Amino acid sequence: MKYLVITILTCLLCFIGITFAENKVLPAPNGIEMPMQYKDWRVISSSHREDNKTLRVILGNDTAIEAARSGRTKPWPDGSILGKLVWKDTEHPEWKKATIPGKFVHAEFMIKDSSKYKDTGGWGFARWKGLNQEPHGKDASFVQECFGCHAPVKNNDYVFTQPSPMP
Amino acid sequence: MKYLVITILTCLLCFIGITFAENKVLPAPNGIEMPMQYKDWRVISSSHREDNKTLRVILGNDTAIEAARSGRTKPWPDGSILGKLVWKDTEHPEWKKATIPGKFVHAEFMIKDSSKYKDTGGWGFARWKGLNQEPHGKDASFVQECFGCHAPVKNNDYVFTQPSPMP
Repeated sequence: MKYLVITILTCLLCFIGITFAENKVLPAPNGIEMPMQYKDWRVISSSHREDNKTLRVILGNDTAIEAARSGRTKPWPDGSILGKLVWKDTEHPEWKKATIPGKFVHAEFMIKDSSKYKDTGGWGFARWKGLNQEPHGKDASFVQECFGCHAPVKNNDYVFTQPSPMP
Repeated sequence: MKYLVITILTCLLCFIGITFAENKVLPAPNGIEMPMQYKDWRVISSSHREDNKTLRVILGNDTAIEAARSGRTKPWPDGSILGKLVWKDTEHPEWKKATIPGKFVHAEFMIKDSSKYKDTGGWGFARWKGLNQEPHGKDASFVQECFGCHAPVKNNDYVFTQPSPMP
């Protein structure tokens, strides 16, 4: 009987632990959950912004990578997710004319679902800030800020990223 | 008999086709073969060089990614391969203060094998230029150029790349 209680308690603690670990990143205010495993996605492109001194790497889930590599990005197919990792520029200690990723700014995502997100160009937007991955936005209206910024690239399916040429 | 001949000929043509496709990228002059599937590797970092106006993304094979994510990069373990994709800067058409990957310059690799490449810091170097992936270097001595350039980062296991901070 004692061993049964110990076993049940151990299982319960494991379950609580796993649940806590899985939910440690809060969803964005519009309900979008952070895409799991995004750090394992493949690369689509990169960019450097002189105005806010940031370096960026743009990754894609499998659907996005297949679309990018076959030129099917106008529009991107439903199911595509683009993930942008953003760092502040910092000077390379041994190559002064180079900048490398410094402080991690945020990871932001565009999720293509042309019916679910039809009011924002078919894209769901979300961003998690800093290494502690705090959701961006006070309420669900934050997406208007995202969508407004992406309006100039409406003719590129609201996406700034252009897949990099690769062999 | 006729069908047997047709079948054998078809198999032979397929074999030649597959062989040709697999070997279309020539090895580097030091004998290093281009690592297959490098475009599917995960990202370690990025950089922007002001001196030659290039954007870079640094990828790693599984061994390198595991090392980078667990801070075991001094030295990088044998079996690690770092791949750097380099593009010329080009202005983003809709965001003038941003540069994005333009012309593809080259893909270059560092392969860690501390015994095989002990004369060059434990690293084998190779580079393939342009979208047609032409091997860099007239003969095997080209690695001295690579190794000389990496000498200033001897204390970082001859590697310029520093894994980017990520959540």
